[in-house]
Amino acid sequence: MKVSDIARALPAEVIGDALLEVARVVHPADAEGPGDLAIAMTKEAAAAAGGCAAGVLVVAPDGPRPDDRTLLVYGGEPRFALAILTALFDPGPVHGDGVHASAVVADDATVGEGASVGANAVVGPGSAVGAGTAILSNVTVGAGVTIGRDCTIHPGVAIGDRVSIGDRVRIFANATIGADGFGFIPASPGLASTGRAAVPDGAPVRIHSLGTVVIGDDVEIGAGTSIDRSTLRETRIGNGTKIDNQVQIGHNVVIGESCVICGKVGIAGSVTIGDRVVLAAGVGISDHVVIGADAVVAAMSGVSRGVKAGTTVLGIPAAPRDLWRQA
Amino acid sequence: MKVSDIARALPAEVIGDALLEVARVVHPADAEGPGDLAIAMTKEAAAAAGGCAAGVLVVAPDGPRPDDRTLLVYGGEPRFALAILTALFDPGPVHGDGVHASAVVADDATVGEGASVGANAVVGPGSAVGAGTAILSNVTVGAGVTIGRDCTIHPGVAIGDRVSIGDRVRIFANATIGADGFGFIPASPGLASTGRAAVPDGAPVRIHSLGTVVIGDDVEIGAGTSIDRSTLRETRIGNGTKIDNQVQIGHNVVIGESCVICGKVGIAGSVTIGDRVVLAAGVGISDHVVIGADAVVAAMSGVSRGVKAGTTVLGIPAAPRDLWRQA
Amino acid sequence: MKVSDIARALPAEVIGDALLEVARVVHPADAEGPGDLAIAMTKEAAAAAGGCAAGVLVVAPDGPRPDDRTLLVYGGEPRFALAILTALFDPGPVHGDGVHASAVVADDATVGEGASVGANAVVGPGSAVGAGTAILSNVTVGAGVTIGRDCTIHPGVAIGDRVSIGDRVRIFANATIGADGFGFIPASPGLASTGRAAVPDGAPVRIHSLGTVVIGDDVEIGAGTSIDRSTLRETRIGNGTKIDNQVQIGHNVVIGESCVICGKVGIAGSVTIGDRVVLAAGVGISDHVVIGADAVVAAMSGVSRGVKAGTTVLGIPAAPRDLWRQA
Repeated sequence: MKVSDIARALPAEVIGDALLEVARVVHPADAEGPGDLAIAMTKEAAAAAGGCAAGVLVVAPDGPRPDDRTLLVYGGEPRFALAILTALFDPGPVHGDGVHASAVVADDATVGEGASVGANAVVGPGSAVGAGTAILSNVTVGAGVTIGRDCTIHPGVAIGDRVSIGDRVRIFANATIGADGFGFIPASPGLASTGRAAVPDGAPVRIHSLGTVVIGDDVEIGAGTSIDRSTLRETRIGNGTKIDNQVQIGHNVVIGESCVICGKVGIAGSVTIGDRVVLAAGVGISDHVVIGADAVVAAMSGVSRGVKAGTTVLGIPAAPRDLWRQA
Repeated sequence: MKVSDIARALPAEVIGDALLEVARVVHPADAEGPGDLAIAMTKEAAAAAGGCAAGVLVVAPDGPRPDDRTLLVYGGEPRFALAILTALFDPGPVHGDGVHASAVVADDATVGEGASVGANAVVGPGSAVGAGTAILSNVTVGAGVTIGRDCTIHPGVAIGDRVSIGDRVRIFANATIGADGFGFIPASPGLASTGRAAVPDGAPVRIHSLGTVVIGDDVEIGAGTSIDRSTLRETRIGNGTKIDNQVQIGHNVVIGESCVICGKVGIAGSVTIGDRVVLAAGVGISDHVVIGADAVVAAMSGVSRGVKAGTTVLGIPAAPRDLWRQA
Repeated sequence: MKVSDIARALPAEVIGDALLEVARVVHPADAEGPGDLAIAMTKEAAAAAGGCAAGVLVVAPDGPRPDDRTLLVYGGEPRFALAILTALFDPGPVHGDGVHASAVVADDATVGEGASVGANAVVGPGSAVGAGTAILSNVTVGAGVTIGRDCTIHPGVAIGDRVSIGDRVRIFANATIGADGFGFIPASPGLASTGRAAVPDGAPVRIHSLGTVVIGDDVEIGAGTSIDRSTLRETRIGNGTKIDNQVQIGHNVVIGESCVICGKVGIAGSVTIGDRVVLAAGVGISDHVVIGADAVVAAMSGVSRGVKAGTTVLGIPAAPRDLWRQA
């Protein structure tokens, strides 16, 4: 990609060779030659730039400007530069075109234009894979599933029957969408048999999951994360919400838009979470709790009561910081 | 299913058209027509029934009875009605019959009558799949594995060599049964080499896992859950025990019957758990701990000592509520 | 295996029949006949040996010596005997030779001598599988991946593009190596579009992961564990480090050699961990924290600040035990 193209995307002012071809975005310490671009926006990085072999540097407007390199002068925050540059240079996972010969796609399933289904992947009856979507190897898509456009479904992901997934969704490896919810009640004489299977004396009796999961647009779902289907309705993940690895989301949960749910969070059944909520790593939320928009829950907290919109809570049980100080 | 059949299953008294055909069990707000059945057993739900399009309502004996609908009058608790009705209408995962052409089943493995092995699933040498069991797509069953009757093994599940699984077991996607236990000791001069692999200086040395895992009847195992094999004997899960998603169960653990183990629980090696124990979400149990029958551990607690039968403990370290109050 | 061979491996002194053939290492209570070997090194076990049917017993030098059995007199600790004996008798997972007919191996991928690729496994373009390595069924290896010699990659493991794995590494089922890191920043006007995809108003914006993961030699990675790729550089796991099930390791993390990381640990992005560190089960580490060599973090602790080398910390937030006592 040419320096001029990068300048347009950031946007940034070019000082030097706007036609230089950039091959990689690298950490300054890893730069090896003129095709490497590094971000040197802090004073420290700019000062150390003399020892950096990158042919192109992204620098701040008010910092030192090494005169031996092509510079991109960027007025935004360094992390914005990093977001934009890494997006520009992300090749995405390598995959083939179309349906691989070893994939098993049901006769009545549809695969959109430019979509791909990888080696040994399975797409069940009545399912639809949107245009431009990449189903990678060893993925299982159940029956009656809808997947939107330009999604990436990584290896080993299991998507259960009737699940609906929006556009531009990324699901990382070995995540599970649409397992049955974990709803059980103690056995009782009135529950001796439901006609499907004898209930062992004293064993918990399942409330079955007839519902599904609906994932909005621009959602990301991390590796090993599981999102259970609803009992009767829909477990919902709103547009733009980002979910990290090994998160557990129970049945009937409704999560708003643009939330950030960090690694190892556990959300029990029937929780409702507003827009733009941040759940830091390792948080647990008890069933039926309501968390208002723009709330923040600190890492490893346990939330057993509702959280008001816009508040930050922490601890087990989670409470506003002031309450913890008083205690 | 006819209203009369549902009445028999609950059981309930019919007021109205016993021959009406019910197609779906729905949340009252989602009902769309005469083929929909909704539960309206609370006063609020019964009062709102006028605005519900369901053709059939399940109502309580003492509540208001809308006279324009077919009614099932059920004397039990609403959650019992939900358990029975969802069981009646659960279609289970869609799957084909028999062994799919893309599945790889070892020559000496056996697949029982009415059992199925899904697309790109693998069943190893000497393994036996019981009658009526559904092995879904992309499942891996190792060598010498026994799976009972009428089980459902969801996509991506990995079952290691020699594991034994009972009847009517449901294992959700991407669970792992029979990985090696996590037993290591610091290296020492006496352990320089065991003939299999040189031990790097100072690296922990593995105690290998020669044992297996035995899962009882009517057990459920959630998505992403892992149950490690024993060192010399059997990691055991008793009949009727229900395990949620992302639970980790270490080597040599013995769990009794009819326990409820919620999401993200971690159980270290050699723990013993009695019958009907409830471990709420996020609980951690230290190795070698013994938990008595009917004990309850509150969410996100850390259990480092034994818990007496019938007691409820909470906190880190977990203790009875009274002790926490005194502290 | 002959008693004499076992004696050499431990090493131990033989009393009795050095040519006896041992078929199994068993728990004393499970012994069934002359081909069974049991460890009876404690006083209790030695005293109970009369009721044990094992043909061969491993005993301590100073304990009672049953005179009706072949004995291996071992001077080390019982757990060393267990490590050595279980290594000798571990058959490893059953698998075929070479590349299975149903596996999909890219034309330009290489599979070393004595390596195997199991049923329905996938190896992507440009990847290299080292000699003697077993890729089991339903594994997905991406593009440009390097896997060393004598590794075992269990079913359902997903290894992303460009990941590098050393020799003698064992990765258990459904683990994910090389998912993208969880790096997001709130949207801003300056981030409206990066040319790849429109950014929804207010949605968090991804910092993409251009880096990779490098796993050293003799590393073990547990079932369901996920290790994310770095933003620009390498997420690194040092030689000899052992990682249990359901551990989450974020992007840019660098872990030293011979660490022990127990089940359900979560390590946020850019954490640095020294050699021989022990993280007990359920620990969480905040991003950018530095943990010195030989430190120990107690179970279910939350580490939000640096930990000095050689210290033991516990609690949320984690601190040395003395500080907790004072508080």
